[in-house]
Amino acid sequence: MTSPLCFINDHFESYSEARVHVSDLALHRGYGVFDYCREIGGRVPFLEDYLDRFYRSAAGLRLDVSLNREQLKEKIFYLLKENGFANSGIKILLTGGDTDDFYQPVRPNLLIFNIPYHAPDISFDRGVKLILFEYQRFLPEFKSINYLPGVWLQPLLKSKGAVEPLYHFNGILSETARANIFLVKNGEIITPGKGILFGVTRKHLIKMAGETFNIEERDVRLDEIFSADEVFMTGTSKHVLPVIQMDDEVIADGSPGPVTVRLMEEFSSYVNERLIKI
Amino acid sequence: MTSPLCFINDHFESYSEARVHVSDLALHRGYGVFDYCREIGGRVPFLEDYLDRFYRSAAGLRLDVSLNREQLKEKIFYLLKENGFANSGIKILLTGGDTDDFYQPVRPNLLIFNIPYHAPDISFDRGVKLILFEYQRFLPEFKSINYLPGVWLQPLLKSKGAVEPLYHFNGILSETARANIFLVKNGEIITPGKGILFGVTRKHLIKMAGETFNIEERDVRLDEIFSADEVFMTGTSKHVLPVIQMDDEVIADGSPGPVTVRLMEEFSSYVNERLIKI
Repeated sequence: MTSPLCFINDHFESYSEARVHVSDLALHRGYGVFDYCREIGGRVPFLEDYLDRFYRSAAGLRLDVSLNREQLKEKIFYLLKENGFANSGIKILLTGGDTDDFYQPVRPNLLIFNIPYHAPDISFDRGVKLILFEYQRFLPEFKSINYLPGVWLQPLLKSKGAVEPLYHFNGILSETARANIFLVKNGEIITPGKGILFGVTRKHLIKMAGETFNIEERDVRLDEIFSADEVFMTGTSKHVLPVIQMDDEVIADGSPGPVTVRLMEEFSSYVNERLIKI
Repeated sequence: MTSPLCFINDHFESYSEARVHVSDLALHRGYGVFDYCREIGGRVPFLEDYLDRFYRSAAGLRLDVSLNREQLKEKIFYLLKENGFANSGIKILLTGGDTDDFYQPVRPNLLIFNIPYHAPDISFDRGVKLILFEYQRFLPEFKSINYLPGVWLQPLLKSKGAVEPLYHFNGILSETARANIFLVKNGEIITPGKGILFGVTRKHLIKMAGETFNIEERDVRLDEIFSADEVFMTGTSKHVLPVIQMDDEVIADGSPGPVTVRLMEEFSSYVNERLIKI
């Protein structure tokens, strides 16, 4: 099997051969931003939202993107056409560049990856477990590559049968390492409204569910999660994923609740409709 | 001029040609550790301390080092001999490796750089300015590559004429982005005792100064810095560096104090003696 194509700065290259110089600031100081979206049958749902966020993250970390939006899209669709996966992930990565001193950002390196999509190995039907972890991301609204706690916690998650840490700080919930969090209480939907990465799936879930439910975006206290009727996560790979346990505490009766199940189905249709319409 | 040699995993390579694969976990999730020490005329002061910390950081992030201590030293001294700088920096970098999924650590990549040393462009005679910044490093005792705030703050530092941010959290001081902090008050030396990266220069400064001064390693409140008689930093490149201003607040009379000046001189001799003795 041939290696997929990827894009680096100004050219396409075989992924297996693609390299960056060892002076890159992401290697030395973990300095860079990225974004990730999905291709389904040649369509990229919500691509404009992901590009909005990517450029916002780059500006937030003061990294220049050498391609404008149209050029970036052109590279993405060229990769999709050439690789022909039909079901894949697209990752755009922007690093601090090839430094002189391993510390000062310079001209960024821009990489675009297109790799086959594999659904996360988790049970959407039964729901998943999270662990609570006290942590506050720095510049949470920008999608930086700073995932030290998320990566570091993986052995603990595995040992506990949990999929993600749910971060909280000063008694306030924020987000999991890679997804947004929602609570359902008395038929209302509640989700943290600041100090988080604003997910594209989160945005569209709120838009969609807002037609039926009252949605509150506000500070959510840690203890509210234990009295919630339902809890779920949203993310690009996860879409809507029921959460049924938090540490050793089972949420409600320990199975996905009716609102969550309804939103899972509706969101699936919501995405599919937009695939056709593009 | 030929490019210096560096080491990657199992071979030496010209620095200008050295590359890592684009799947490296440091690029994707900022996951890795490093350490940095100095060579002076073929000697590496406190090398064993730096190696202690490097292996401790690697273990802390659960990254295997493919070389044992003797093998690592052998590679370092081979680089020093071949590059022949006489006055250089040595950086050991260990990343999460070439991942399959851009998230799970795998077999780490080990890199050793040896580059000419340039003294920091700061006035040791007049002292430097810091800015206060509220931040708590994650796993502070391990030297991870997570320097997002330190790198991100550089334009602000430059605009204020400051060299580093001094981190504090919940009213307690910890460290600057790249150095340890010390206060002098009524002839005693005070320095944060936990929640920091334990610097090698810090360790030896304490050992040396402890012969003459009383030294307290304990929690240091933010307000103590404003009533200190003297403030200084310690680091591998900086050795002992006087701090004379914190944001807009001048420390004491705004010039390096007598204890700091004495320690600068004594530490210089302390290092030189150890160069000869090796």
